[in-house]
Amino acid sequence: MSHQATMDDLIAFRRDLHEHPEPAWREFYTTARIVSELETRDLDGLYVGPEIMDTDERMAVPDDAEIETWFERAREAGAREDVLDQLKGGYTGALAVVERGEGPTIALRVDIDALPITESDEDDHLPTSEGFRSQNEGFMHACGHDAHATIGLGILDAVIASDFSGTFKVFFQPSEEQVAGGKAVAESGHLDDVDYLLALHVGLDHPTGEIVCGVDGFLAVSHFLAEFTGAPAHAGAKPEEGKNANLAAAAAIQNLYGISRHSDGATRVNVGLMGGGTATNIIAEESFIEGEVRGATTELMQYMEERAHTVIESAAAMYDCDVEISVEGKAPSARSDDLLMDIVGEVSEGVEGVTSILRSDELGGSEDATYLMNRVQEQGGLAAYVGVGTDHPGGHHTRTFDVDEETIRIAIDVMAGSIEQLAAKQA
Amino acid sequence: MSHQATMDDLIAFRRDLHEHPEPAWREFYTTARIVSELETRDLDGLYVGPEIMDTDERMAVPDDAEIETWFERAREAGAREDVLDQLKGGYTGALAVVERGEGPTIALRVDIDALPITESDEDDHLPTSEGFRSQNEGFMHACGHDAHATIGLGILDAVIASDFSGTFKVFFQPSEEQVAGGKAVAESGHLDDVDYLLALHVGLDHPTGEIVCGVDGFLAVSHFLAEFTGAPAHAGAKPEEGKNANLAAAAAIQNLYGISRHSDGATRVNVGLMGGGTATNIIAEESFIEGEVRGATTELMQYMEERAHTVIESAAAMYDCDVEISVEGKAPSARSDDLLMDIVGEVSEGVEGVTSILRSDELGGSEDATYLMNRVQEQGGLAAYVGVGTDHPGGHHTRTFDVDEETIRIAIDVMAGSIEQLAAKQA
Amino acid sequence: MSHQATMDDLIAFRRDLHEHPEPAWREFYTTARIVSELETRDLDGLYVGPEIMDTDERMAVPDDAEIETWFERAREAGAREDVLDQLKGGYTGALAVVERGEGPTIALRVDIDALPITESDEDDHLPTSEGFRSQNEGFMHACGHDAHATIGLGILDAVIASDFSGTFKVFFQPSEEQVAGGKAVAESGHLDDVDYLLALHVGLDHPTGEIVCGVDGFLAVSHFLAEFTGAPAHAGAKPEEGKNANLAAAAAIQNLYGISRHSDGATRVNVGLMGGGTATNIIAEESFIEGEVRGATTELMQYMEERAHTVIESAAAMYDCDVEISVEGKAPSARSDDLLMDIVGEVSEGVEGVTSILRSDELGGSEDATYLMNRVQEQGGLAAYVGVGTDHPGGHHTRTFDVDEETIRIAIDVMAGSIEQLAAKQA
Amino acid sequence: MSHQATMDDLIAFRRDLHEHPEPAWREFYTTARIVSELETRDLDGLYVGPEIMDTDERMAVPDDAEIETWFERAREAGAREDVLDQLKGGYTGALAVVERGEGPTIALRVDIDALPITESDEDDHLPTSEGFRSQNEGFMHACGHDAHATIGLGILDAVIASDFSGTFKVFFQPSEEQVAGGKAVAESGHLDDVDYLLALHVGLDHPTGEIVCGVDGFLAVSHFLAEFTGAPAHAGAKPEEGKNANLAAAAAIQNLYGISRHSDGATRVNVGLMGGGTATNIIAEESFIEGEVRGATTELMQYMEERAHTVIESAAAMYDCDVEISVEGKAPSARSDDLLMDIVGEVSEGVEGVTSILRSDELGGSEDATYLMNRVQEQGGLAAYVGVGTDHPGGHHTRTFDVDEETIRIAIDVMAGSIEQLAAKQA
Repeated sequence: MSHQATMDDLIAFRRDLHEHPEPAWREFYTTARIVSELETRDLDGLYVGPEIMDTDERMAVPDDAEIETWFERAREAGAREDVLDQLKGGYTGALAVVERGEGPTIALRVDIDALPITESDEDDHLPTSEGFRSQNEGFMHACGHDAHATIGLGILDAVIASDFSGTFKVFFQPSEEQVAGGKAVAESGHLDDVDYLLALHVGLDHPTGEIVCGVDGFLAVSHFLAEFTGAPAHAGAKPEEGKNANLAAAAAIQNLYGISRHSDGATRVNVGLMGGGTATNIIAEESFIEGEVRGATTELMQYMEERAHTVIESAAAMYDCDVEISVEGKAPSARSDDLLMDIVGEVSEGVEGVTSILRSDELGGSEDATYLMNRVQEQGGLAAYVGVGTDHPGGHHTRTFDVDEETIRIAIDVMAGSIEQLAAKQA
Repeated sequence: MSHQATMDDLIAFRRDLHEHPEPAWREFYTTARIVSELETRDLDGLYVGPEIMDTDERMAVPDDAEIETWFERAREAGAREDVLDQLKGGYTGALAVVERGEGPTIALRVDIDALPITESDEDDHLPTSEGFRSQNEGFMHACGHDAHATIGLGILDAVIASDFSGTFKVFFQPSEEQVAGGKAVAESGHLDDVDYLLALHVGLDHPTGEIVCGVDGFLAVSHFLAEFTGAPAHAGAKPEEGKNANLAAAAAIQNLYGISRHSDGATRVNVGLMGGGTATNIIAEESFIEGEVRGATTELMQYMEERAHTVIESAAAMYDCDVEISVEGKAPSARSDDLLMDIVGEVSEGVEGVTSILRSDELGGSEDATYLMNRVQEQGGLAAYVGVGTDHPGGHHTRTFDVDEETIRIAIDVMAGSIEQLAAKQA
Repeated sequence: MSHQATMDDLIAFRRDLHEHPEPAWREFYTTARIVSELETRDLDGLYVGPEIMDTDERMAVPDDAEIETWFERAREAGAREDVLDQLKGGYTGALAVVERGEGPTIALRVDIDALPITESDEDDHLPTSEGFRSQNEGFMHACGHDAHATIGLGILDAVIASDFSGTFKVFFQPSEEQVAGGKAVAESGHLDDVDYLLALHVGLDHPTGEIVCGVDGFLAVSHFLAEFTGAPAHAGAKPEEGKNANLAAAAAIQNLYGISRHSDGATRVNVGLMGGGTATNIIAEESFIEGEVRGATTELMQYMEERAHTVIESAAAMYDCDVEISVEGKAPSARSDDLLMDIVGEVSEGVEGVTSILRSDELGGSEDATYLMNRVQEQGGLAAYVGVGTDHPGGHHTRTFDVDEETIRIAIDVMAGSIEQLAAKQA
Repeated sequence: MSHQATMDDLIAFRRDLHEHPEPAWREFYTTARIVSELETRDLDGLYVGPEIMDTDERMAVPDDAEIETWFERAREAGAREDVLDQLKGGYTGALAVVERGEGPTIALRVDIDALPITESDEDDHLPTSEGFRSQNEGFMHACGHDAHATIGLGILDAVIASDFSGTFKVFFQPSEEQVAGGKAVAESGHLDDVDYLLALHVGLDHPTGEIVCGVDGFLAVSHFLAEFTGAPAHAGAKPEEGKNANLAAAAAIQNLYGISRHSDGATRVNVGLMGGGTATNIIAEESFIEGEVRGATTELMQYMEERAHTVIESAAAMYDCDVEISVEGKAPSARSDDLLMDIVGEVSEGVEGVTSILRSDELGGSEDATYLMNRVQEQGGLAAYVGVGTDHPGGHHTRTFDVDEETIRIAIDVMAGSIEQLAAKQA
């Protein structure tokens, strides 16, 4: 008999995760907690850490010392040693598989990582007043992934408890915030037999009770880090001996924004971070810029990426500098399939607490669930990305963000209902 | 009877300072040690901290927390509480005055601050092998100011011990490395009755035994910090709402280097440090550039400074950003007077260990002793900046820099001899 | 009895205009020929030159000498002196009005100007082989406005010959190629009583026989000319005395392309022309850039325009230069109304030679018919911009462009039919 | 017996040249007139056009049509056909050789080309009031090369008439204004046996009666023309298909000015001319920048040139454009030898009308006499560049420039006297 969480259990679980926010590839405590829960369910497969991904495809992996720090922190917070052992080196996340006879293979994807944001300590911030504010100072679940992981567990329970027929997989994916984990999971092989994939996100400026059957308008994105290396020199005595890495970076920045707009659709470029140099009187030997390009389609993003690399390399050459460009995160564009949106819509109509159903809405941002969606769609399957409204006091990625926990139940009902319906239809 | 240090005393003193390197406006231990020594001499005046400067003219003053940190560190290292009390708020440095009857007023200026450089811990680095490596990790006397302070003390003793007639002042000036302290001291009033001013520097790529009677080629310099403030926005969803501080900084950098060369002589410009932004997907709200302009003359520096400010302000305006420009350090140009160079040359010929005497040499860098030199010269006095060679294993401002302590004696003999000669000539 | 042109007459008329291509505000021969034709029709109103426009709103008016040159050229080519007198100063174009009792006021707008392109003199270019190649070397009807004027005349004849009831106005608008004439005509007052406005364009990559009921996707556009004035100086002897207009222009160009993309839709920016300076060894005193910004909506264009002006002014300030920015052409965005598109579609179905009917298509460029469309729509009227396919051997704005003259008849039948239908419906 | 010109002849000759100013490689009339005069002298060698140069080393040669235009103009102005035949293709200039027994080989170099400046037609401009204003409208002898050629002829006569012993060569060099002719002449072979070379320039802000024995401070210079080729595209419809030559040029301009200053001495950079594009709505396919770099030494110029090429090529690469860089003019630095300066100084003391003798002065500009000077000095000879003051109402290279013709006599006396003295000393 599979353990089934009550809503109280789920809320406690969510708050535990909320207290222990962990950023990309460092979701040690989070994964250990999820795995502990999963082990009490009647599963046909449980995959942990490196088993759920193509380990060569991780992006933006922190350095060893950084990983080690978070590993130790998770241990001290009480994460199970045997699970931690499986996650060594920053291979986080988990996959639960349930096989229930004939029927389609349906997958659900939720993400589990947190953000480098310091959580509000004001009393009007519920996690603070209720005592589950982040214990990892400087980090915060400010985008609801704590709720996502919880919802994933709840849906699993609901599907197991139903008369679902087929195979059901729940991916607890790491490292979404930097769009650094989706590709590795998409290429794990675990998606290759999936007929239907559902992903979800809470909030997105939709209130509690509102469902978006299919979120669209994902901008394909590529994060880049360009590190320039020149030669230092005393700026007063021997300026001509310098190879000016700051100037190379500045030339790159200026010209990156000058990449031509494209008539096929929206594109974006941003150098969000820059830095360089050591002293006012030294020609800077090293500098970096970190940024992103986006496109309304994967092709548009690739156009931007190619042009960006040319600009960066030319800027380096202009000042006799070397440059290393690395891709720190990436996600394609994607669209939701009509059939799945139809079913989500129908099911939502019957879910208590749902007060508004939108066929679709534009995200205007990026997500690496798109890698998984594309993978499934390329192999003939269908996919949809569902929005589940939640009243959130502060905006996403702000220190006062929080989720209305009522949303957890609604999301479970809508998604589990849709999965059961899908399996039934197929049969 | 005035205490007079032996060479052993002086070397011990220098090594003590070397072990406690302190950067600009944080020379608490250093000043306390100097004052302790001075108090044992037969002085006619002793001025400490705020008494030696126009307190409004300090530049690049660190924030209170930073000053407090170093203040506590000095206390813990054993600095005298009563002296520390006089230095509160980061007013460091000291001035010793000796009055010995009729005669000219002669001043000596030495500087006392250290650099933010991590000292070598290799055994072939003498301070390491001899046990007086920096105890303030990350900071180091890598430009010989520990020796300068020591030489200042030695010269004072020698002058007191001689039949010098006149008034003699020794300035232990803080904050030279960022050319942030010279102006405040120059405008203290203590220079206004000075007939002759001598300053000195060890090393400068001259070997032990070589004397440069007058160093020339000071580039006037101005350090600037420009802080840009724009408006953040999500780079994917609402790029048009951003006011891009990184782009403003990049435009400033590119165009700063484009300031026209000047037909009157050498100019320089460098943006040594830059930084900005918080995340790849956020239009940067804040950025900064920190750099310097120089000129072969004070006028050329001012030309560069004025143009630089126009460029920076226009770059900010271009991207609807605000910008705050602050001057973090400044020094005019200066030249050494022939009469003083003559005397230093003559005296050097009779000093044991002097093997080579150069009339003059180009510094090719900046120094804020120039403020003091200009002050004296503007009022009809004479000034010279003397180079005292020392074998230094690593270059100035590198982690393996060290001074040949034999230099301390040579410098004292040359400078004290010149001061006595000057006083004698005048009489 | 109104004169009515045969198809042979119309083709001869079109070829005569083709032989005498004239650019913006210089359509002297063209206007005189049109007026000569109009005078033989039974009109209720004929307005010429300054009478059809708000004369203060002309943009990109050439200088007097240039206007005079073309004026003389028209005279020498045989244009009627009495008409030319009405056009003095570069006020070109004409408006024919027919009043036929009760009914709506319907307007047609065609444009009449040519381009600064040298026409092909190859034998496979029909105007060359048939002997009506441009006599104004360097200028060419390379966008079909010769056909537009002819079609306008043919529609007028057809409407007069029909049992049309209402008021019908045909605007022969000057200066469309630089979007410099539409605003002046739109603000003439002649549009203010118009219920329905139709405009048309041949070609646009649609073949003969294809009709586009309503062209959409007009990008709002603003052409700017920025003229920088600095100060000259000898680049070797006194570079610092220069105020470098070339550098100011270069900084403007770089940063114009860096204006942020907008999340509301497509934007464009281009500096198509630049120039500056007099000699390699002189700091440039004068320079200019000429370009355009566009937006999918008028608001987006205005966003780009405002940012562009800020960038240009800041670039000038950066180099102590002055700058004059002038708007050389401008057009808002617009959309076609469904009712008119419906009627054009219905009528087209019955027109001989029409083989394909598209509801709508994207222009992807700019047009100042939009000023007239907006004017009518703002006052409660309807407007549509119709595409009439024509086989054109070379692309628009190329030296081998030509129109299939069969298109003239099709266009007349479609448009005159639609106008009659509209009047009938209303009645 | 050699013809010897009177001062009246010389003045008439100078005014004839002044009336027929011809720019670089187009000095057809000028050369023909010089050759006509030389043929009446008792010469031992007369070389014309291609015979005086390494024809591969001409720089900035105009296109054939341009050369042809000036060739015809010279013919129409009455230039001798037989001489013109020798100059075909733009090989202008002449060399006269006199051999008078034993003695050193001494050379004189004068330049003969004019500038693209429109001469003043005001009555207070002497060439206008006296009737010898430029007949080649838009061109002018605004730097005194008409006087230089005349002085060369006068010196030749004076040397022939003296008891000079040795060999004497007078180079009438073309194309100095663009520093485009010196290299070709320097590498002709005719300099290779020269022991002493004298060059001269009138004016340079020195009044009539002032002699500068040796002008120094020549900045080495290199003129470049960079032509960018990208790809055109409609800026509204398909901006992404463009390769933006205007943007590439703007990036090049900005970064050229950013080339680092050099601690070895003065450098310069200027983009004096720029242009590009065809229409506001077309991404520019072609653009160009034309400029120069300079250095206080030839090495400094080369440093600038190398960096400039890197910047230009990188800017092109940044926008996927091609670029062709051509050197349009070039001159090294040079210095005058003491021995020659001594002799010029001594001789000047005895010349009537000389009222002031300066040992040396800084030019602050460029000259390609330096190629010839370097050539002679590299082979062990000596060289000097002499300044001969002249009252000039307007500055050099302005429309009101003129020379005080009294200078012609003074220059002949100083230079011929020096040449005789040199020959005598040697003997």
